[in-house]
Amino acid sequence: MFLIIPQVQASDLITHKQRFEIPEFTTFGGKTIKQLQVGWESYGELNADKSNVILITHFFSGSSHAAGKYAPSDEAVGYWDAIIGPGKAIDTRRFFVLSVDTLVNFNVHDPKVITTGPASINPDTGKPWGLDFPVVTIRDFVNVQKALLESLGIQSLYAVAGASMGSMQALEWATAYPDWVPRMISVIGAGQSDAWTVAALEHWAQPIKLDPNWQQGNYYAGEPPMAGLTAALMLLTQQALYPDFFNQSNPDHNPLEAAPLNDIRQSHQVVNWLRDMAATRATITDANHMLYLIRASQLFLAGQDKPLAQAMQQVKARTLFIPASHDLLLMPYLAKQAHQALLKAGKTSNLGLIVGPMGHLDGVTNISQAAEDIQAFLTQEAL
Amino acid sequence: MFLIIPQVQASDLITHKQRFEIPEFTTFGGKTIKQLQVGWESYGELNADKSNVILITHFFSGSSHAAGKYAPSDEAVGYWDAIIGPGKAIDTRRFFVLSVDTLVNFNVHDPKVITTGPASINPDTGKPWGLDFPVVTIRDFVNVQKALLESLGIQSLYAVAGASMGSMQALEWATAYPDWVPRMISVIGAGQSDAWTVAALEHWAQPIKLDPNWQQGNYYAGEPPMAGLTAALMLLTQQALYPDFFNQSNPDHNPLEAAPLNDIRQSHQVVNWLRDMAATRATITDANHMLYLIRASQLFLAGQDKPLAQAMQQVKARTLFIPASHDLLLMPYLAKQAHQALLKAGKTSNLGLIVGPMGHLDGVTNISQAAEDIQAFLTQEAL
Repeated sequence: MFLIIPQVQASDLITHKQRFEIPEFTTFGGKTIKQLQVGWESYGELNADKSNVILITHFFSGSSHAAGKYAPSDEAVGYWDAIIGPGKAIDTRRFFVLSVDTLVNFNVHDPKVITTGPASINPDTGKPWGLDFPVVTIRDFVNVQKALLESLGIQSLYAVAGASMGSMQALEWATAYPDWVPRMISVIGAGQSDAWTVAALEHWAQPIKLDPNWQQGNYYAGEPPMAGLTAALMLLTQQALYPDFFNQSNPDHNPLEAAPLNDIRQSHQVVNWLRDMAATRATITDANHMLYLIRASQLFLAGQDKPLAQAMQQVKARTLFIPASHDLLLMPYLAKQAHQALLKAGKTSNLGLIVGPMGHLDGVTNISQAAEDIQAFLTQEAL
Repeated sequence: MFLIIPQVQASDLITHKQRFEIPEFTTFGGKTIKQLQVGWESYGELNADKSNVILITHFFSGSSHAAGKYAPSDEAVGYWDAIIGPGKAIDTRRFFVLSVDTLVNFNVHDPKVITTGPASINPDTGKPWGLDFPVVTIRDFVNVQKALLESLGIQSLYAVAGASMGSMQALEWATAYPDWVPRMISVIGAGQSDAWTVAALEHWAQPIKLDPNWQQGNYYAGEPPMAGLTAALMLLTQQALYPDFFNQSNPDHNPLEAAPLNDIRQSHQVVNWLRDMAATRATITDANHMLYLIRASQLFLAGQDKPLAQAMQQVKARTLFIPASHDLLLMPYLAKQAHQALLKAGKTSNLGLIVGPMGHLDGVTNISQAAEDIQAFLTQEAL
């Protein structure tokens, strides 16, 4: 998901980015990453018995900045600030809320993000990894988070919650480490990447690979593939939205504009609008990081070792799925499939819904619609 | 629309491709195309007073081969053979049904297609037009059809019907030449390309333009941009479909395949499946033709001179709109907008629906669902 609307508002939370390092990390695929570093931040206080931890796992184009500000003068707040904070649905007066920048993070050139991926220096060569960086999976994101939690003396979660690719991590937590997870919230989520989703994600990779500057991923000494990356972000942006919002944002659109009518090389204004947004965003990301995020999302199968119906049998959490009515990227049927698989396995699962004009992005911008459901869910006893 | 499932069946119709030439054609944008040629075919017989003509306008990736076979030994029949033929909804015992290859046709390298576009030789230079070919619009497709009809002595239609980009031509006919059109049928259609649709179509153009072989459209003396064209066709194919069909077609899909897990350069099987289909189809098309078809579709505004609500006032036809329930490419709201605009203008408009698992493509593969509605519609008196 590609967040194009920073939520500018007041927040009572001030947080700061911290750094966590793993000297040698072994991926799910069996490869080694040395000197792995990720950033993390937290809101609220860890209680004495470390029983009040809620982990927030972030979406494709997101970071660990889930709530609050880094400084009172910041314009934007974290993406789920509407539900995380003192007195909010995820109440930081009660919970210690923690979030971690993923591996191969999208916002690698954002100074507030700390991540390790193909744009990082491989300690063994002194050069950027490029495509020698190992393929990483949703399980790897989870395992890095688990290592961080353990370094803080934490042995279990109160809950895990995430949107979109964050929902994949949340369900992966509940499936791979069921003793850690009594409550799981999946927003605009899925239990696995079905054939449709795997193919849909591939379209984001193709413009990058076609850009002659991509050079099979070895572009770090030269010009990065900005045209391909921008095209990829244009597609991602549109697929995370829905026509209602898109058309409302372009009220003066006229299909028969003079420039594209008179010159095949010119574009409609709405195309230029989309391209300008994508080009701006491209300056803080990295094309190879995007390819690795696409692959991690494509490979997602909760539990990572058996069909979904079987994997759901090992979940011990109460679960809450909240799809968005107009989602074109991870359509509601995906959340419903995981929910149904859990019910069939005899688990306690709940299904909510966010109704909005923005499509997939409603899982972020309209999360306040789900605030009451989330708040009520968090009051329920562990099973 | 990208037809991936040839309808293999018997047909009672045999047809043949004919050639029509316009020595000098002036586009809507005011440019000149010399020695314009298009192919056309027909089913049934023109009656004495030439009052039984039904024009079928084709979709983005289609041709004039709407029904029948060129030879009894052909495997595939025309795309709407289910509703065009003796005794069928569009009954060729009664009607003279005619269809025309569009300008800048998608299937330019199909020996059965005759078209003029950027891959054609510009008579003034003796070289392929490339991007010097003028931008053409849906009105230009209509004007070529009108010139052909007039060359046959035809002065009005009994009806015009088309799917997808064909629906644009059908409504353009009814709006630009209302005295010609007493009945219009729009399947999986739209009244204009809204901001969402213009941007959605642009994503098909981008992989082509990123392919280094594209060379700003001047590739006819060298290697064509097949990688970019294939990527574009992969996207077009998926957007014309829906998850239900897509997932049913890949029953063995496993998100956690070994090849893409172990190597970032490898793809999932479903991606290879989609790529193979697209690469095959790419051999009969042309990258620049696709760019010009995208542009013609982006520029579509019925009537091409005023807002849709006003333009619909000049329509004299009874109209029938048949969206497909699961269409992700031209969602049903687009057909409903045009239908509502006609009702508001005091016109007689009808709204049907095709319900199916294939998405946009249901307008072709499941057209038999609408056969009764179409048959009944064609019995109605002109207004």
